[in-house]
Amino acid sequence: MNVVKDGWFSEIGPLWKGQAFSLEVDKVLFHEKSKYQDVQVLKSKTYGNVLVLDGVIQCTEREEFSYQEMITHIPLNSHPNPEKVLVIGGGDGGAVRELTRHPAVKEVTMCEIDEKVVEVSKKYLPNQSLGFDSPKLTLHIGDGFDFMSKHEGEFDVIITDSSDPIGPASSLFQKSYYELVKNALRPGGISCSQGECMWLHLELIKEMMTFCKELFPVVDYSFAATPAYPSGQIGFLLCCLNPEANLREPVRILTEEQIKEMKLRYYNADVHRASFVLPQFAKEVLEK
Amino acid sequence: MNVVKDGWFSEIGPLWKGQAFSLEVDKVLFHEKSKYQDVQVLKSKTYGNVLVLDGVIQCTEREEFSYQEMITHIPLNSHPNPEKVLVIGGGDGGAVRELTRHPAVKEVTMCEIDEKVVEVSKKYLPNQSLGFDSPKLTLHIGDGFDFMSKHEGEFDVIITDSSDPIGPASSLFQKSYYELVKNALRPGGISCSQGECMWLHLELIKEMMTFCKELFPVVDYSFAATPAYPSGQIGFLLCCLNPEANLREPVRILTEEQIKEMKLRYYNADVHRASFVLPQFAKEVLEK
Repeated sequence: MNVVKDGWFSEIGPLWKGQAFSLEVDKVLFHEKSKYQDVQVLKSKTYGNVLVLDGVIQCTEREEFSYQEMITHIPLNSHPNPEKVLVIGGGDGGAVRELTRHPAVKEVTMCEIDEKVVEVSKKYLPNQSLGFDSPKLTLHIGDGFDFMSKHEGEFDVIITDSSDPIGPASSLFQKSYYELVKNALRPGGISCSQGECMWLHLELIKEMMTFCKELFPVVDYSFAATPAYPSGQIGFLLCCLNPEANLREPVRILTEEQIKEMKLRYYNADVHRASFVLPQFAKEVLEK
Repeated sequence: MNVVKDGWFSEIGPLWKGQAFSLEVDKVLFHEKSKYQDVQVLKSKTYGNVLVLDGVIQCTEREEFSYQEMITHIPLNSHPNPEKVLVIGGGDGGAVRELTRHPAVKEVTMCEIDEKVVEVSKKYLPNQSLGFDSPKLTLHIGDGFDFMSKHEGEFDVIITDSSDPIGPASSLFQKSYYELVKNALRPGGISCSQGECMWLHLELIKEMMTFCKELFPVVDYSFAATPAYPSGQIGFLLCCLNPEANLREPVRILTEEQIKEMKLRYYNADVHRASFVLPQFAKEVLEK
């Protein structure tokens, strides 16, 4: 793990056995163990700079936009008035960039456990970390679980932009975490979390949706194409406190002009709707 | 290329520079040069048997269904009466399996250039090659370009299930090929071709759509998630001779019962519609 061999970095891991995505590397720009994890930044040949945590690709400059836009604009445009937003994790800054560009958002709070991730993103991922400069942002370094337990009824939208359920993010995939999320939301609030890949982790997704349905009246699942994540796809687990809400239909349709202003390259209203349409094999498991 | 090293096969190629998908290999089941290409079958650890042509993964037993279902059922269910279907390429048999399962299809003709591919698929990919046993099928071994030039106004649907535009399939990505496709179609006929990946080959796709629009009144682009293809996604280039056709809306909605009978795991009517919804960056290039 974490080894660049013969000029290539390969992402081999226990959550995607027998398969690996590899990137040709020009140079290792940064490599250090933080208090929580192994942090690496690679300069790749064709994907720009790449952030790698504990051997797992978190984002590449070439295609991070699909993940960042979808984990933010789906919940934002499903909420009539998403003024106060909390991000748990997301230390690369991409989600904050998207949130602070959205005209309806007034305040963003971020709670990231690992200061080192914020630090290296500011240095090596300028197009993502520019979100950190926004006056809308309050940055808090600390544990998301702890932070959440101290905030009640405060946020319209909570984004859990975490790594996989191994390592520092594992507690964010449990029911007890979603109980805190529920309590930290304002009435009608929406939670959107990194929801793993239906081609690899359908049972985990099913399990999470099942316990979330015990807490929230509306639970749904959406996904995006993400070429540098395992199997080329990642999902989003969405929960909403408003029992009347249909997250599949945006309550706010961004105009072509707004899309241009917000520099969106993946998200639009049709993409929002289509992202909930699951292949038959996943539909049979997740929508029953 | 074509090398299994330290137990892993890596797909490194000029059409996806700087990135590679790798599969852990149990055993090389077959490896021979045919008259046209290097043919390999790998027994992978987690993706079942894998067909590799000239170093490029063509299909894996684990996830071939998404590609095979989408390249066939999108054109079939966009056509009011798809009785006679031609497949160019597709020697693994997966497309034929889907076509022969569709109740509206009466006759399938396949023209595959490389007999060796059919032979190894029959031996190592039984769940795909079972299509070859159908009484609906006429198999022709030969060049698709040649075959097409000898058939005029014969087919309701033509599927071009080819490898990439390097090697034996390169002629199938040219305007002269689509002129033959047009002539081989019956009135109202639909062509559906392997259309590469929007994350990698947007300009090639744009170019092909541009020359197809000179030949067909309706040209459109759809895509599917395909974890074992480069960047995890592949597209389908669709052309139709009926100027009134809207390929995005199926003319035949398969019931849940039919979906079960046909053993579909990816395609359904909602997936059909959603597969045409392009991310903003691709929409801006391909829908202008």
